[in-house]
Amino acid sequence: MKAAFLPSINSKWEIREIQTPTPSPNQVLIKINASGLCYTDVHITKGELPLPLNFPLILGHEPAGEIVELGESVTTRKKGDRVGVPWVQKTCGRCEWCQRGKRLFCEQQQGTGVTLHGGHAEYMLAYADATVLLPNEISHEQAAPIFCAGYTVYSGLRAANPKPHERIAVVGIGGLGHLGIQYSKAAGFHTIAITHSKDKEELAYKLGADQVVTSGKDLKKNGGADVILVTSNSYKPAIEAFQGLRPEGRWILMGASNEKLIIDPLSLFLNRHQIIGSTQNDPEYLYEALDFVAKGKVKVMTETFSLENISEAYDKVANGEIRFRAVIRN
Amino acid sequence: MKAAFLPSINSKWEIREIQTPTPSPNQVLIKINASGLCYTDVHITKGELPLPLNFPLILGHEPAGEIVELGESVTTRKKGDRVGVPWVQKTCGRCEWCQRGKRLFCEQQQGTGVTLHGGHAEYMLAYADATVLLPNEISHEQAAPIFCAGYTVYSGLRAANPKPHERIAVVGIGGLGHLGIQYSKAAGFHTIAITHSKDKEELAYKLGADQVVTSGKDLKKNGGADVILVTSNSYKPAIEAFQGLRPEGRWILMGASNEKLIIDPLSLFLNRHQIIGSTQNDPEYLYEALDFVAKGKVKVMTETFSLENISEAYDKVANGEIRFRAVIRN
Amino acid sequence: MKAAFLPSINSKWEIREIQTPTPSPNQVLIKINASGLCYTDVHITKGELPLPLNFPLILGHEPAGEIVELGESVTTRKKGDRVGVPWVQKTCGRCEWCQRGKRLFCEQQQGTGVTLHGGHAEYMLAYADATVLLPNEISHEQAAPIFCAGYTVYSGLRAANPKPHERIAVVGIGGLGHLGIQYSKAAGFHTIAITHSKDKEELAYKLGADQVVTSGKDLKKNGGADVILVTSNSYKPAIEAFQGLRPEGRWILMGASNEKLIIDPLSLFLNRHQIIGSTQNDPEYLYEALDFVAKGKVKVMTETFSLENISEAYDKVANGEIRFRAVIRN
Amino acid sequence: MKAAFLPSINSKWEIREIQTPTPSPNQVLIKINASGLCYTDVHITKGELPLPLNFPLILGHEPAGEIVELGESVTTRKKGDRVGVPWVQKTCGRCEWCQRGKRLFCEQQQGTGVTLHGGHAEYMLAYADATVLLPNEISHEQAAPIFCAGYTVYSGLRAANPKPHERIAVVGIGGLGHLGIQYSKAAGFHTIAITHSKDKEELAYKLGADQVVTSGKDLKKNGGADVILVTSNSYKPAIEAFQGLRPEGRWILMGASNEKLIIDPLSLFLNRHQIIGSTQNDPEYLYEALDFVAKGKVKVMTETFSLENISEAYDKVANGEIRFRAVIRN
Repeated sequence: MKAAFLPSINSKWEIREIQTPTPSPNQVLIKINASGLCYTDVHITKGELPLPLNFPLILGHEPAGEIVELGESVTTRKKGDRVGVPWVQKTCGRCEWCQRGKRLFCEQQQGTGVTLHGGHAEYMLAYADATVLLPNEISHEQAAPIFCAGYTVYSGLRAANPKPHERIAVVGIGGLGHLGIQYSKAAGFHTIAITHSKDKEELAYKLGADQVVTSGKDLKKNGGADVILVTSNSYKPAIEAFQGLRPEGRWILMGASNEKLIIDPLSLFLNRHQIIGSTQNDPEYLYEALDFVAKGKVKVMTETFSLENISEAYDKVANGEIRFRAVIRN
Repeated sequence: MKAAFLPSINSKWEIREIQTPTPSPNQVLIKINASGLCYTDVHITKGELPLPLNFPLILGHEPAGEIVELGESVTTRKKGDRVGVPWVQKTCGRCEWCQRGKRLFCEQQQGTGVTLHGGHAEYMLAYADATVLLPNEISHEQAAPIFCAGYTVYSGLRAANPKPHERIAVVGIGGLGHLGIQYSKAAGFHTIAITHSKDKEELAYKLGADQVVTSGKDLKKNGGADVILVTSNSYKPAIEAFQGLRPEGRWILMGASNEKLIIDPLSLFLNRHQIIGSTQNDPEYLYEALDFVAKGKVKVMTETFSLENISEAYDKVANGEIRFRAVIRN
Repeated sequence: MKAAFLPSINSKWEIREIQTPTPSPNQVLIKINASGLCYTDVHITKGELPLPLNFPLILGHEPAGEIVELGESVTTRKKGDRVGVPWVQKTCGRCEWCQRGKRLFCEQQQGTGVTLHGGHAEYMLAYADATVLLPNEISHEQAAPIFCAGYTVYSGLRAANPKPHERIAVVGIGGLGHLGIQYSKAAGFHTIAITHSKDKEELAYKLGADQVVTSGKDLKKNGGADVILVTSNSYKPAIEAFQGLRPEGRWILMGASNEKLIIDPLSLFLNRHQIIGSTQNDPEYLYEALDFVAKGKVKVMTETFSLENISEAYDKVANGEIRFRAVIRN
Repeated sequence: MKAAFLPSINSKWEIREIQTPTPSPNQVLIKINASGLCYTDVHITKGELPLPLNFPLILGHEPAGEIVELGESVTTRKKGDRVGVPWVQKTCGRCEWCQRGKRLFCEQQQGTGVTLHGGHAEYMLAYADATVLLPNEISHEQAAPIFCAGYTVYSGLRAANPKPHERIAVVGIGGLGHLGIQYSKAAGFHTIAITHSKDKEELAYKLGADQVVTSGKDLKKNGGADVILVTSNSYKPAIEAFQGLRPEGRWILMGASNEKLIIDPLSLFLNRHQIIGSTQNDPEYLYEALDFVAKGKVKVMTETFSLENISEAYDKVANGEIRFRAVIRN
């Protein structure tokens, strides 16, 4: 099979022809149909994340495809199953967090496209019980980006614990943000996009936003928000957005960069604001995130590339030239 | 090995000598040290529960022991691990509830001592990932009853979502109730036992109760409770206890009998009461339930029997002659 | 002024001409524009509620109008304010529940149309701080029924603590239920009406329901519901609806009749169902309930009567001939 | 009567003899028995808080005493009532937050010792409905500091929404912190003090701490905490304490200084940490905070001064020479 390899940190990805792997016990072999290329792939390539990587490595943590072979002892999956694979595949099973059922906090977790080969290939192995069945109504191309981008943003929305009648604002209308607007709207909330760009204003309305404001200050004038979903890794506009956060409002951080967060404690204190860190979590949220797409209420905006052209895709993602989500198609 | 078999519904348990089983892939073989005998075993024997049973069957869903052999592909357990096994061992992995990570609602779940042989034996097989590691400080005898009785009552306490300063009352001071008092107290709540019996009054204080009342009416006069843990399957005193439930109070049902619950809607409505059904759930709660015992804050009161004398234990449980928990020891 | 008096239990309402009252300190005089006639008025008239009544009494606990006179010391209201008055007007201020800020549980509360004259008149007194300002966009006629019917049903929806992606079913498509469907939809939930009647099926879709099913059994077949709003006081269909309640679902009781609730404990226990009693509560919920109407997302279906014809209105309500809400207009 | 006046920003407090005031309608006159002197009084004196002050002003927002005179229309209080007065006394009654019942967010609130004269005097006026009845078992001296210090720290504990089995750490063992340890312990949590000082270590154990650690790093080694109560306004040790915050832990900010909070987003994100701003809030929490003291489970450590010596008390508070709470006694 063909696969895109990262030979080492800071090197160029290479398409190599290797033997299609065989599933070990409890694993399945997936014929990859679509594999999202996330900005995190760039971070990994540049060695910017403190992850234990096994080189040469196939990246890609948004894979979707069809099971074509079962390893021994697999009982919960069958050939022909359409599945995706989330970030966490296997954990130690022994630490407190594994025992508590919160495997995302296990320090020995094995991650898709990190310690285990990911989806930028024609085939991929995955632990059967880590795979997630795709609803019939969802295409592989639409499903793939949900396994990181969609899961992240919807987990953030759920972490905010939004209540009926609340107002949700989204900062950053890109790969995560365009999904944030749609998920917020699909879940029934009054949804506000915060953006300076005229261009994005129009887009935000198309995606279902009820309101578009230019800043937190502007947001405050126009009713404020109970929840702010921070989908950009540049914190300046997100911090400014606090000005439009209503009392008891929640500010949800869904990603991290090297910048520090610099927060005014007085306003936080007086308004009883909350700052909530939110990684992807809880299988329920992935289930619901996929279901909203399956029901046609959320639609990922993708730009597709063939595996052969993955370097082009990579460069575009690295240079910020992909507006929403890049997906490699086989 | 020796094991106690239930040959069929409504028959007598028989100690039989059989070959010690060999773990299949993903399974472990546990040398049973302690196995709780729960009243549910009586229900199962009498055919009173709508469960899919495989006869002849070894019952026992409160097993604790040591892993002595690993099946193929087991990575998360090793020989010498001290473990217990909860009710749910394996599920379909495909239904909505499995996908959501709420396996207790899977309709094809395989249960310890139900579809799979349980702990009333010298050895037992279990799926490795279903086993729960025991803290070092807890004995097998103390651990075993936590896997059903302790887990049930602590899940109920957690399902009540009790808040600081709240008052928790326990109805029924027996196998579950004597743990309910201790868990409530260990978690820091003002704890009230509801009982008519002078004898149990004394016991309740020994277990840590702050207050003992004779009925819901008496409870009302003496400050009421925000949470009522219903640990008896005879509902009369539990329903009467509603009289002492404070506004916004929660009444937690942790078991079920054939009686119907007959509820006064007016009082429920005006007081914003909640009736909450609570099975064992969430691995976190089992983790915490075991930890409270390991820390010495909760102590199970047991009566022990050898495997040879399991019929005597059964008769005593069936006749209500075991005051707290019966445990079979090897 | 003219007012409709109930001379005593079980007597006929009488329109009498009396002197327009003068506000005491902290009170305001409201020129009533619209006054909802609720089935509770029938219960009160028939002496079916255990309330401390002062005869002769003007009923009406859904009043809306304009403030025309201020008593001494009133600082928070001014002439011309458009207001409604909820059920609880004044409480003891000393009991635990008053101290906790949960005045609805005060045993000495003074209720609109119960211990204090209500809105079935041309003018009405109310404690200034108990009145609620109406949003500009809402008419008196639309506002009035929100003060009991709307508040009740929306409080119930909020008491269910519904989460994004959940499904809400409504049993009983009448005065409360037609608002329940609309509130559920306005808050963004997949909304299901449970009704046998073809006629109501059509109506339910018009009100915004996504789905109509005939029973709990039918509901189960069609995806179930996470929340069931019980808006009818006849419990048979509501109890049957448990069959369609998903695991961890909540069954919300928003009213009470003389029937007992007869509940199957096994299903409650195994499914971790919750039964939640919900009166009107929390000023936030009234604020939001009014706002949804002001925003045009919920529309009360009313039948209006003049004060002179209030007996006709009463008879129709008593005989179940008002399909949704009766409102007296001045 | 005698009263301590702040003539203007940055001036010295002066004891003046003025006429005892007469309650206006809805007000009561309180003979002050004890009045806490909080560091906020220093902030106000130095003009460091953006508050609308009326000079000359009597400060003191922790007053406790006995009602000796009732203004007109007061129905909920009587002579002889023992009461304290919290920060928020009166609000506009018209804004969204007043309508929602969250008066602490009203922008026109009138504050004790800010826009209204406070408790550093022999007598004080207060709006009757803003006063809080003291439990019989609590002395004025113990009650007074609860109205700011105790309320603040207990509100913070409740804002953390701590669950059974969780671990709570307190940073800063002074005026707030010594109450934090006691409230955490009274509510049943494993309680940890974070302090470098040997001296405070001993004290922390006396106050009921289960564990004392020297830093967040040390905390991490020793089991971590699920909640960190930040009771100091110097953020360095509090920020360092994040290192000991367990996954899904909450870091509660209960006060604000001029320092900025500088937060590492990566750890916040990966651990799903929450930063929660918490002012005093919700009458329930004040009710419970007083009750824990009344029950003898929390004991304020006070240093008392006569009104004549209030300048001495002020200087000591300003210079950090009061270890816990200063209280003026009449």
